[in-house]
Parts: sequence; structure tokens; C-alpha cells
Amino acid sequence: MSDQVQLVPGNTLITDTPEEGRQLAIKLARLTIKITQPDAAMREKLRPVYAENASMLIVIGATVAAEFATIAQANNYWR
Amino acid sequence: MSDQVQLVPGNTLITDTPEEGRQLAIKLARLTIKITQPDAAMREKLRPVYAENASMLIVIGATVAAEFATIAQANNYWR
Amino acid sequence: MSDQVQLVPGNTLITDTPEEGRQLAIKLARLTIKITQPDAAMREKLRPVYAENASMLIVIGATVAAEFATIAQANNYWR
Amino acid sequence: MSDQVQLVPGNTLITDTPEEGRQLAIKLARLTIKITQPDAAMREKLRPVYAENASMLIVIGATVAAEFATIAQANNYWR
Amino acid sequence: MSDQVQLVPGNTLITDTPEEGRQLAIKLARLTIKITQPDAAMREKLRPVYAENASMLIVIGATVAAEFATIAQANNYWR
Amino acid sequence: MSDQVQLVPGNTLITDTPEEGRQLAIKLARLTIKITQPDAAMREKLRPVYAENASMLIVIGATVAAEFATIAQANNYWR
Repeated sequence: MSDQVQLVPGNTLITDTPEEGRQLAIKLARLTIKITQPDAAMREKLRPVYAENASMLIVIGATVAAEFATIAQANNYWR
Repeated sequence: MSDQVQLVPGNTLITDTPEEGRQLAIKLARLTIKITQPDAAMREKLRPVYAENASMLIVIGATVAAEFATIAQANNYWR
Repeated sequence: MSDQVQLVPGNTLITDTPEEGRQLAIKLARLTIKITQPDAAMREKLRPVYAENASMLIVIGATVAAEFATIAQANNYWR
Repeated sequence: MSDQVQLVPGNTLITDTPEEGRQLAIKLARLTIKITQPDAAMREKLRPVYAENASMLIVIGATVAAEFATIAQANNYWR
Repeated sequence: MSDQVQLVPGNTLITDTPEEGRQLAIKLARLTIKITQPDAAMREKLRPVYAENASMLIVIGATVAAEFATIAQANNYWR
Repeated sequence: MSDQVQLVPGNTLITDTPEEGRQLAIKLARLTIKITQPDAAMREKLRPVYAENASMLIVIGATVAAEFATIAQANNYWR
């Protein structure tokens, strides 16, 4: 698939806290974009497109919510 | 990732009531937008774009629903 | 967050029947829109936009489905 | 909420078979549209808009998948 | 609902393998489109619209992922 | 359905690590596109459309998140 991009940092879904779980969710979402568009220059060009677009910011939020759902379950919700 | 933005207020998914769980869901959704677009002035500029757009209001609702699903499960649905 | 809007009517996800669970799902979805756009006049202005737009009606349906999934699980599917 | 529209036909998520569960999923999706747009004439006007639009057909499919996920779980997957 | 279209082939979510489960997920997604747009000629007309449209291909993928999630759980993930 | 395309590589959802699980999620998402648009030349033509489009990159991310949720659960989150 890809030799360069690590898709799951630390190769684990387990985190110490919800805060770290949330950070991992954001990283997973970003790494999917990275492997789909491996060209860093192109990603830099696209970054302001979604950071300054209300609609895209919302859909990014939905993706992070989905990643976080999996991570939260993996960690038994840090109960 | 980010030193400034706390992504999970209180660093817990546990809340006393469904009402507080719902408030947390909305906060999580907003904090994802905040970390993706850290520039407060830009966020202020974008706010009316989605608050006055029916389509975006609906997609925000879908994101909050997803965040809430995780929080509700974390709290065993406050049963 | 908001002092005026109650996000979870009755502050519970438990309902007597699937029918009431479905009504709650619709209410939750609407209350997210209400807190995101607290201006009643603006909401009234937006209402026909999505009630008369096939695409938006469908996405509203997806959101209600997501809210209902959580409520159904909270109620152990009224089995 | 609504006195006229029944949102969950039969007021149960339990069905005899996966086939009937799928039919219920489609009904639930349609009934959300019905309560959001109670005007039958308007719904009739909108119907061809999504039946002849590839993009909308796909999003309807996503909504039905979500409704079915809940119904399948309610029925313990008819195992 | 519909006398002609069978919505769940074989009327079961149980399959022998993940591969067959994935095929079923694709069939379920297609059958929802079929019942929403029963006119075969119209479906044929729409087919190239989404097969040649990057955006629609992606959303079809999301729907298949959702259908597969349910089927995988029904089969206890073929563990 | 399809004799040529294998939809689940290795015909299993079980992987050794989260990293491999994530790779499988991306493969599943791509294979759905492959079976929906079997023409390789057309897929090649569409590839830059979504790799250079911020909005599509985000929706691809949402699909991968959904596929990964299923795989992670199949593997009991590699706990």
C-alpha cells in the first residue's frame, strides 16, 4: 500500500486520556488525506481551501467524530 | 498536535445527565472546527455562512448526532 | 453553552415506545439546529428552504436516523 | 409533535425476517420525509427530483442503510 | 411496500465469508436504488452518471461501508 | 456479482496490527470504487479529480473511517 506513510501513529488505538484519543482521531483523519494525496505541495495548496470553507470544516468535523467513535470504544470510553 | 486548544473539555466523556452529554457533543464538534481553523477572525467570518445556510445547519446536526452517539454510549445512556 | 435551549427534552433518552423514540430523535435533530441558529426569525426563513428541497429532506432523514440509532440502543430496542 | 403521521409502523422495530426489516427501514426513511414535509402535493412534486437524480438516490441509500443498521441490531440480526 | 423487488437476497444477512458479505453489502445498496427508482430504463440512464463521477463513486463507497458494517456484525465478523 | 474483483483481500477482516487494519480499510474503500467503475482507464482519469479536490479528499476520509470502524471491531481493537 504505502511504505512511507504510517497510518496509525504508534500502531495502537489505546490512549491514556480522552484528550489524547481525540488528538489521535484528528491524526487518523489527516493521515488518510496524506496517503490519498501523497504530494505535500498539493496538500499545502489544498489546506486553505477547506480551512476557509464553512462546508468543508463541517464535513471534517463529521470525519473526526467517526474516527473518535472507534478510538473511544477501543479505550472502553476511558471509564 | 496543538498546545493551545483543549479538544475534550474536562478530559472526560462522562457527564451527569443527557443534557450535559448533548452540550459536550456540541462542544466537541465546535472544537474540531477550532483546531482545523485556529484563526478566530476567520472562524467569526465563517460563522454566519453556516448559521444562515439550511444545508450546513443540517450537516452540523449530523455531526452532533455522531458525537452524541459516542458520549451516550460512554455514559451507558444514563440508564 | 446555552441557558435557554433545552437540548434533550425531559433530560432522558428513555421512552415508552419506538414511536416516542422516533419523535425524540426528530426533536433532538431540531434542537441542534435551534442552538446553532438561535434566531427564530432566521430559522423560520430557512424552514421552507429545506422543506421544499429534495436533497435537504434526504439529509435531514440521515440525521434523524443517526439520532434514532442512539435512542433505540438506550432503550434496548424496546424488546 | 405530530398527531397525524405515525413514525414507526406497528410501533415496533421487531420483524420476522431481514426482508421485512429492510422494508421497515425504507418506511422509516420515508416517514421522516413525510413529517418534515407534510404537504402531500409538495412531496409528489419532489419525488421525481430525487428518483431521477443519481446523487440523491445514493444518499437515500445511505439513509436506508443507517435505519437498517438499527433494525438489524434490534432483531439480533435474525440469527 | 413492493411485491416485485426482493430487498435482501436469500432473506438472510448470514454469509459464509467476508467476501460474500461484501458482495451482499453491494447488492443491498443497489436494491435500495432499485426500489426507489423502479424504472429500469431510468436506472440505466443514471448508471454512467455515477460511474463516471468521482464524487458519487465516493459516496457509493460510504454506503457500501455502512451496509457492510451491519452484515459483518451479523456474522460476528467471521471470526 | 463480479468474478474478477476480490472485494476483501485475503477474505478476512482479521489483521495483526492497527496499521494493517487501516491499510485494509483503505483497500476496501478502493475496491468498492473498482467494482462500481470496473474500467481501469476511467478510474485513472478520475483519480486526479479527487486527489486534487479538497472536498472529495474529506469524504474519502469519512469512508475510510467507516470501513476502519468495522475492521477495528472485528479485531477487538487489537487490545
